[in-house]
Amino acid sequence: MKYVGKDIGRKDGYDKATGRGLFTSDIFLPRMTYAKVLRSPYAHAKVLSIDTSEAEALPGVVAVASFKNTTNKLFNCAAPMFLTPPPHQCVLDQTVFTDTPKYIGDEIAAVAAETVEIAEKAVKLIKVEYQELPAVYDPLEAMKPDAPKVQPECANPQFNNICGGPIELAFGGDVDEAFKKCDVIAEYELVLPRVKQAQMETHGAVATYNPDGHLEVICTTQAPYPTKYILAEAFDLPYSHVTVKNPPYVGGGFGVRIGISGKAEAIAAALSMKCFRPVKYIYTREEDFTCSDSRHGGYLKMKLGATKDGKIIAQDGFAALNTGAYATFGVDLLGVCGACGTLGTYNIPNARYLGWPVYTNQETAGAMRGYGSPQGCSMVEPCIEILAEKLGMDSIELRKMNTTKEGDQNWFPYWPEGVYTTNECLDIAAEKSDYYKKHGKAKEQTGRYRRGIGIATCTHVTNAGPFCVEHNTVTARIEADGTLLVNGTFPEIGPGTSTAALQVACELIGTTFDDARLAFGNTDLTGFDVGSHATRTIYTVSKCLEALAPKLRAQIFQYVADTRKLPLDKLDMAESIITCDGKEVVTLKEIALEAHLGGRMFIETTNTTPPGLLPKYAQTAEVEVDVETGMVRCLKVVAPHDVGRAVNPPLCRGQIEGGVLQAVGYALTEEMTYQEGKGFYNKNFHSYMEPTADSRPEIEAILVEHPENNGTLGIIGIGEIGIIPTLAAINNAVYDATGVRFHEFPLTPERVLNGLKAAGITAK
Amino acid sequence: MKYVGKDIGRKDGYDKATGRGLFTSDIFLPRMTYAKVLRSPYAHAKVLSIDTSEAEALPGVVAVASFKNTTNKLFNCAAPMFLTPPPHQCVLDQTVFTDTPKYIGDEIAAVAAETVEIAEKAVKLIKVEYQELPAVYDPLEAMKPDAPKVQPECANPQFNNICGGPIELAFGGDVDEAFKKCDVIAEYELVLPRVKQAQMETHGAVATYNPDGHLEVICTTQAPYPTKYILAEAFDLPYSHVTVKNPPYVGGGFGVRIGISGKAEAIAAALSMKCFRPVKYIYTREEDFTCSDSRHGGYLKMKLGATKDGKIIAQDGFAALNTGAYATFGVDLLGVCGACGTLGTYNIPNARYLGWPVYTNQETAGAMRGYGSPQGCSMVEPCIEILAEKLGMDSIELRKMNTTKEGDQNWFPYWPEGVYTTNECLDIAAEKSDYYKKHGKAKEQTGRYRRGIGIATCTHVTNAGPFCVEHNTVTARIEADGTLLVNGTFPEIGPGTSTAALQVACELIGTTFDDARLAFGNTDLTGFDVGSHATRTIYTVSKCLEALAPKLRAQIFQYVADTRKLPLDKLDMAESIITCDGKEVVTLKEIALEAHLGGRMFIETTNTTPPGLLPKYAQTAEVEVDVETGMVRCLKVVAPHDVGRAVNPPLCRGQIEGGVLQAVGYALTEEMTYQEGKGFYNKNFHSYMEPTADSRPEIEAILVEHPENNGTLGIIGIGEIGIIPTLAAINNAVYDATGVRFHEFPLTPERVLNGLKAAGITAK
Repeated sequence: MKYVGKDIGRKDGYDKATGRGLFTSDIFLPRMTYAKVLRSPYAHAKVLSIDTSEAEALPGVVAVASFKNTTNKLFNCAAPMFLTPPPHQCVLDQTVFTDTPKYIGDEIAAVAAETVEIAEKAVKLIKVEYQELPAVYDPLEAMKPDAPKVQPECANPQFNNICGGPIELAFGGDVDEAFKKCDVIAEYELVLPRVKQAQMETHGAVATYNPDGHLEVICTTQAPYPTKYILAEAFDLPYSHVTVKNPPYVGGGFGVRIGISGKAEAIAAALSMKCFRPVKYIYTREEDFTCSDSRHGGYLKMKLGATKDGKIIAQDGFAALNTGAYATFGVDLLGVCGACGTLGTYNIPNARYLGWPVYTNQETAGAMRGYGSPQGCSMVEPCIEILAEKLGMDSIELRKMNTTKEGDQNWFPYWPEGVYTTNECLDIAAEKSDYYKKHGKAKEQTGRYRRGIGIATCTHVTNAGPFCVEHNTVTARIEADGTLLVNGTFPEIGPGTSTAALQVACELIGTTFDDARLAFGNTDLTGFDVGSHATRTIYTVSKCLEALAPKLRAQIFQYVADTRKLPLDKLDMAESIITCDGKEVVTLKEIALEAHLGGRMFIETTNTTPPGLLPKYAQTAEVEVDVETGMVRCLKVVAPHDVGRAVNPPLCRGQIEGGVLQAVGYALTEEMTYQEGKGFYNKNFHSYMEPTADSRPEIEAILVEHPENNGTLGIIGIGEIGIIPTLAAINNAVYDATGVRFHEFPLTPERVLNGLKAAGITAK
Repeated sequence: MKYVGKDIGRKDGYDKATGRGLFTSDIFLPRMTYAKVLRSPYAHAKVLSIDTSEAEALPGVVAVASFKNTTNKLFNCAAPMFLTPPPHQCVLDQTVFTDTPKYIGDEIAAVAAETVEIAEKAVKLIKVEYQELPAVYDPLEAMKPDAPKVQPECANPQFNNICGGPIELAFGGDVDEAFKKCDVIAEYELVLPRVKQAQMETHGAVATYNPDGHLEVICTTQAPYPTKYILAEAFDLPYSHVTVKNPPYVGGGFGVRIGISGKAEAIAAALSMKCFRPVKYIYTREEDFTCSDSRHGGYLKMKLGATKDGKIIAQDGFAALNTGAYATFGVDLLGVCGACGTLGTYNIPNARYLGWPVYTNQETAGAMRGYGSPQGCSMVEPCIEILAEKLGMDSIELRKMNTTKEGDQNWFPYWPEGVYTTNECLDIAAEKSDYYKKHGKAKEQTGRYRRGIGIATCTHVTNAGPFCVEHNTVTARIEADGTLLVNGTFPEIGPGTSTAALQVACELIGTTFDDARLAFGNTDLTGFDVGSHATRTIYTVSKCLEALAPKLRAQIFQYVADTRKLPLDKLDMAESIITCDGKEVVTLKEIALEAHLGGRMFIETTNTTPPGLLPKYAQTAEVEVDVETGMVRCLKVVAPHDVGRAVNPPLCRGQIEGGVLQAVGYALTEEMTYQEGKGFYNKNFHSYMEPTADSRPEIEAILVEHPENNGTLGIIGIGEIGIIPTLAAINNAVYDATGVRFHEFPLTPERVLNGLKAAGITAK
């Protein structure tokens, strides 16, 4: 192939390296105003009165919006309202502003003013009288029948505060009966922390509502079309009267802005509707950390049962995750945690999962890279180790015996036939990490530093269909000089999608790459795309291009056949040269100009629905535990991932490396710590501990390439996968180093030291 | 019909009435800089040296561009370079900056700075040493062999300074022989002034060239795609790496910015290429008046010969028009002057036309509403009157006998069969103006004020194909809530195109209008459209929608047939309700959401090439001549125009009224007066005399509706037509009032008084 598989530099590299690329905070519109938000100081309260008159009277204030003068239509600022085909439920439980704040930071009112300073001052002039209400912060506490009710409609005599009802998945036969037949049973439970996406760019939007009833929003969303639909529904506008675009760049996403960005778009729009001027609202880092979706923390419990030969015949999974004050993706995510992270990897004939998305009076949890699968994996993979130890089996062999293989029926009725290479990935991970040489040395080690190695595997989704609306539209045209221009409404949120998609486009259409360009779309001018999420973008855009390319090529070939009197079926094109029976006939440049002068543009728009696929991968992690301080360092992660076909190998490895690194933080240092009455302590990069260059392990990302049957050119997605198994692999590695199994994450020195002490391990 | 033919308010009315609509000068981009241009103080000179070092050293200056450091590739800042299919020639005779200025105002260099003030100061710091060269200003003078050469390559021993060679059109037999057979011969010659489009918004552009090699321009062009192609060629960029968009509004055009806007886009781009920052360049009103295209003035001569029964059998037309320093549309326009204005209206079996586009050292003349047809009409129609008088015939009867009728072959081999209603328009004009009652009273009148009535007809083009590239692309989609969104790359330059196009779209697709929207395109995201010019937009967009609508409807019907098990051929849709055999089945809203949830968008992109058509119309003008002061007032214009079908009657009448009013200025007050050594005196609205509310005649625009066979729903264009016959009708009316035939326009009091005095007419 000419372009697919090649190390081609990022098309957005120049813009980003030189600072010329525009992000939302760079946008300035004429007559633009600036917004600030009044947020609740209470975790749960009722607003008894609000007086905005002083704020309104402050010179320079152009609009004040609150729950009193803004739509109180219930909506969901994440995407599922428009993404979930029936019968999948969607919880509508929030309003743009509220008179009943449900977490510290909940939006009461907002001000738009000529300057940020005036807006800040005006917010302080809003007088609010609150009546504090009882609050609850822990999901298990919140589930108790007498717990304070976070969302009044969730009163349930048995289990309180359950958002959208529990997710119950079941496959095969009776699980309780199956456990009775098991020779060996393993159980593992753990507590996972709330962590943050901590993307580089905070949420932001510039919204302009004009007197013609049209709302235009330039913002940081990962999903322009869902954002358009959410805003249209929330503000009762026809969909055709809402435009959403990126500026075009988005400084990272990691799931935090699938749907609207925090509430930036809705707040800016509500204010613009009052003043008919553009309103810019950019979250501070503190607001971004504490007032937008995070990853679900909570309680997980796994039970596996096997016959003595190692066949796992029973599985029971449980998750009670803290979804915070509002649903957003809470329900769906608990589903993916069960379907992918818990039940998707192994072919277990009697399996079930019960997932509780639990409301609490904390900031909302929603989508974050991995979307429930890291949580599921984190309970399954340590349990596999425990089971293997009980069985006296090598855990990798145990895994390989039980992984889902081609033709197997597991919980998913939906996945199309694909390539199943989990076992190969496990073998590669073991081999490349010298796993067998390094593993099982806990008892031989003494002294301060103990090393260990662990392994984990899992699956996830590439594309979330059929569980959510998943379709794409791509337009491609040949310009009058023969160059290719491609558009879609999928944002470039960082991974290099725009470069890789263009590599695929040039490959499939048969044009040269250097002069081709992918232009970022907006919802006014390009067709529906659900956005950059769910490990889907390059896979689904390629699927759409696969359908589009023959149609665009047919237009060109028909033109050449007609004008050159050549047999249509013998025409071909590669690298913008048209051949007949292998002989060069004419260049695309020549016929594009000729066609243009004759009144013709070769242009094609195609809309397709791609199927969902299952990714395959495994990772080993090597750690060093300082038994004196409890400090755990991750030394190396070996990460073989089956990418089907690597469109752009460095970008592909970049995705794996980024995911692994984020998961190292998840396992060892990152945690949102709640202080009752104050809210989250970790509001910025000083107090929220991400891995730094210093704590970064060596990451060996290995691109396994077994072209996926269902993927265009064999392509399958990679975006989220790197993050999923790492925490479990590190967990297993720490056990391998110390013989102590931990149950609460991240593995801070304090937790580790306490665990080691309890087990009597010291630096002797 | 539901929407076509209805008085529907403009969709852009809110934006414009409330001041919320954005124009180019409203655009502010981060790090934007401001440009000013150093223009030649000489009409013809050679730059001996230029020193920009002081300007460059001025704090706040970020870029200085001149002929020394900018591409010197020859280009044409109007559209023909990319609009004219072979063999029609295109003259490339200008560069972005020049070291040989050819008119007062020619661009030598430009500065981009942090503020306009710094840029102005820096321009004054550029030191230029000029050697003045001999100059020529009059086309007849310029054609003499020893005249100074404006463009060196135009040295021709016989006729000097001819731009692109003369336009010679011939039809039928030997014209000289035919004149010998005529019983009556009439001749008329006149001098027409240079006039300006005087659109409300001056030229402007904001150009951003980024280090990735991509140029984006937001500007005032009427033709985004041609602008894109012109800039790509001038700066040697792949077409796919240039984006052109309107902001979206354009404050009028009238032809002055088909292609780039003056040179705003090129100057801003040249500067941005030096500093990699956005550069904004907005023409002052003075620059707009004196440094961008105007209407061609010059010398015209018509000779008509008829047999005594009134059959016109010979025609000889001549035009030598002042194209100024550069070609832009000069060559093409002389062609339209001949083909439409001169030879297109009457079916004369022996006819010829010779048109000279002549270079002079004045500002360039190019496209202006009517594009040569007003000039051609202005020599033919008075000559018809003279011929009628000589024949002793009624001039209207003479016209009607000789107009081109269905099936006639005239000079044009290209026009498809259409509806020919010129004679009906002549009759309506005569009847509605009481022509016969008012006409022919010159000799009966005495006193200071004399009244007269005149008539004129002509033709023009609707769409300039096949003489230039003429194709359109439209995309239409059904949003997930069932609303319609339409896009194309045709700007809204004022006439209400965006409203009317949407009326046609809703009519043809079968959707409701209120929630439908037309979104303005840009060249990155919407397909080729040659732009808003040549009386084409609503006609050609409708043609494209006519091709698109059945395809989009077919997608919808196929979906309904499949999901509802209904016979495909019995499905229909109107007002967004789908019926089967006349019975309501489902609403578009319902199935759009259902299809979306199922992973499907109904979306269609279509590209079509519309044929060119001939408009039909006539106008009468009534005038009152003050024989004491020479002041001519136009009292009333009756203007029946065959619009085929009026999509939006008030908008349609608005086009006619605006054209007539502009032509009243052309006939009576507007004139660019050249002062040697100083340039044009009329640089603003104080000195350039447009009609005011006070001098506005009553205009009775009559919409004649004979659906055009080739037009979608019968639609034919109207944009330019109002302006074409008015000057000739006023000319004929002044003759009718006074018995004096004038030969120089506009009819200023001085000229009229001189003419009346010479004829011995006083206010006795």
